[in-house]
Amino acid sequence: MYEAYWRGMGDRCSLVISGSEVMSYLGGNPGGACWFLEPELEKSIRRIHHLVGNAAAQAEDGGHVVVGTGSTQLLQAALYALCPPDQPEPTSVVCAAPYYSCYKEIAELLQSKLYKWEGDAHNFNKDGPFIEIVTSPNNPDGLIREPVVNRPNGKLIYDLAYYWPHHTPITHKADYDIMLFTFSKCTGHAGSRIGWAIVKDKEVAAKMTKFMEVTTIGVSRESQLRAAKLLGIICDDCQAFSTNTKSQNFFDDSKRLLTERWDKLHEVVKRSETFSLAKFPKDYCLFSDRFYETHPAFAWLISNNKVKDCASLLRGHKILTRSGNRFGADATYVRVSMLGREEEFNLFLERLSTIKIGICNGIAHIN
Amino acid sequence: MYEAYWRGMGDRCSLVISGSEVMSYLGGNPGGACWFLEPELEKSIRRIHHLVGNAAAQAEDGGHVVVGTGSTQLLQAALYALCPPDQPEPTSVVCAAPYYSCYKEIAELLQSKLYKWEGDAHNFNKDGPFIEIVTSPNNPDGLIREPVVNRPNGKLIYDLAYYWPHHTPITHKADYDIMLFTFSKCTGHAGSRIGWAIVKDKEVAAKMTKFMEVTTIGVSRESQLRAAKLLGIICDDCQAFSTNTKSQNFFDDSKRLLTERWDKLHEVVKRSETFSLAKFPKDYCLFSDRFYETHPAFAWLISNNKVKDCASLLRGHKILTRSGNRFGADATYVRVSMLGREEEFNLFLERLSTIKIGICNGIAHIN
Repeated sequence: MYEAYWRGMGDRCSLVISGSEVMSYLGGNPGGACWFLEPELEKSIRRIHHLVGNAAAQAEDGGHVVVGTGSTQLLQAALYALCPPDQPEPTSVVCAAPYYSCYKEIAELLQSKLYKWEGDAHNFNKDGPFIEIVTSPNNPDGLIREPVVNRPNGKLIYDLAYYWPHHTPITHKADYDIMLFTFSKCTGHAGSRIGWAIVKDKEVAAKMTKFMEVTTIGVSRESQLRAAKLLGIICDDCQAFSTNTKSQNFFDDSKRLLTERWDKLHEVVKRSETFSLAKFPKDYCLFSDRFYETHPAFAWLISNNKVKDCASLLRGHKILTRSGNRFGADATYVRVSMLGREEEFNLFLERLSTIKIGICNGIAHIN
Repeated sequence: MYEAYWRGMGDRCSLVISGSEVMSYLGGNPGGACWFLEPELEKSIRRIHHLVGNAAAQAEDGGHVVVGTGSTQLLQAALYALCPPDQPEPTSVVCAAPYYSCYKEIAELLQSKLYKWEGDAHNFNKDGPFIEIVTSPNNPDGLIREPVVNRPNGKLIYDLAYYWPHHTPITHKADYDIMLFTFSKCTGHAGSRIGWAIVKDKEVAAKMTKFMEVTTIGVSRESQLRAAKLLGIICDDCQAFSTNTKSQNFFDDSKRLLTERWDKLHEVVKRSETFSLAKFPKDYCLFSDRFYETHPAFAWLISNNKVKDCASLLRGHKILTRSGNRFGADATYVRVSMLGREEEFNLFLERLSTIKIGICNGIAHIN
């Protein structure tokens, strides 16, 4: 979706690296909390959070920046850092349903004795230490989230991947112990696999860094330099935008596109009567100085006729979605990406609008 | 060490990526065994193995290419793929000592129930399934290795990171079930974090791919494109070299440098009488059409006077090494990198040559 924006930016955004540059494991940050973090990336990360106002990430806020191969690796690093190695039982890991399907996969992959996936935080009633992942805005449903367990012995990981002004109003400067962000959801550069964590505790930051050191010996330096450059350009343009109304601003441009898409989707959904979508309340955005509503990266559709396997129904209409049961919800829900290319999105709307369902003896009849 | 070579290659080796290129998770390989592998990288990998003759990696050899964030991630992916999830006991993981210190760290990091580090393969005498890692040439000691357990229920992972003609004669085309390679040890680009596996079994390749998908949702596309380009240029130059004696060849140039360094180190070690180094036998290299000996990336020094903590002794002389006990050997050994920058290497030789030790009542006297 963001490709056209970046194409319009031309050569200014090109990354050029000669064959002899960034060869060694080590960048210029040997004394920092994260030895493989490129100093230019750290600078761009602190700068963009300062400018957007979405997270307390300045040196004076006391947060350490840790870079990872996407925020996916950082989530594992955080689990590793927060789970003591010598507990009789694995630490429980929970997240309020519907939750991002990958959390479960990550936590269960290696059958670690350090932690154990316990599913929906709403149903969590074990004693003992736990970690709650708070995703806000939430993936898949776009809602603003708070912790739900609220008991002693708990540690929180905030996944703020979507807390950017093109997706949602920036209502406050997030200031939590561990906050995860990703280049992918900020600018659209998913292929770079760059994520970062802002971590208050130096020892936790060091343990997370150790995790990346053992599992991948750092993070691609080429990708770090590209992220540094593109985040820096967004900052430059936002600053120019505030003084020059003709200049472009990535967040405003992207929000405009997302708003158009959401308006179109709401229109199709309303007409079809087959599915429903949540309505998001409007809120005041401190970055944009305007009221607007959340425009998530995903649509969380629910079947009005309680079709038992919504994803199969849609697959039959050549619409690829992820079933609700992968998110700890039921299969009457599906998650659909809102960030595809223009032609893909239009095709999705077109196909969605042709679906009409009647229920007869509990079996969905698909027309 | 290789920086000067790549500097000499100029703009030909520069990677240029515009802001709108390689944005999505997916490259052009959706139907392949590894969906996030860049087709250009696969092509360069197959080409360089064909040219060097060090591994059976052509499509007709039946091997699948899987890319990872360094071979470190691929090793974990291989452990995941080879260990059934439903065994009563974790699968044993062994490697003949001295072994690469990171294997132990990787296998123990998350206290997985899938596998368990059991140390030196020479001492392994458990029944039940096991995985033996065969590193050849070996890190830290540079020796050519074969499996040592040789019992039923065993699976092998070959770590061939150093099986390239600048390090060792290419005596045969390796053709094993799982072979790991890394861009870092081939060309010197450690910061790119690119490794690859050649995997015979399609299902194992798919499980390894799944591991990368869950843990990092693929591998940096910028780094993959850079690796594709530089490996391709090495191939172009090797092919030009065979017809034009004036052109440069990365492997010959690097071998010349490594040979010079090893000659200098042998000279210093011989004169100092404080340490010893193994001598490597000469062998015929099918790639270079010449006899020569292995020139490992590391020197594996042993104290002649049985100094109990060789790494501390050397640290006292401002020489940073990794102690033998991290490799399953004892602390009378140390591993030293041979691949540092020219000035670092010369400083190392200079400092090493000043060390004289006498033993008095079992205590090493350091002068």
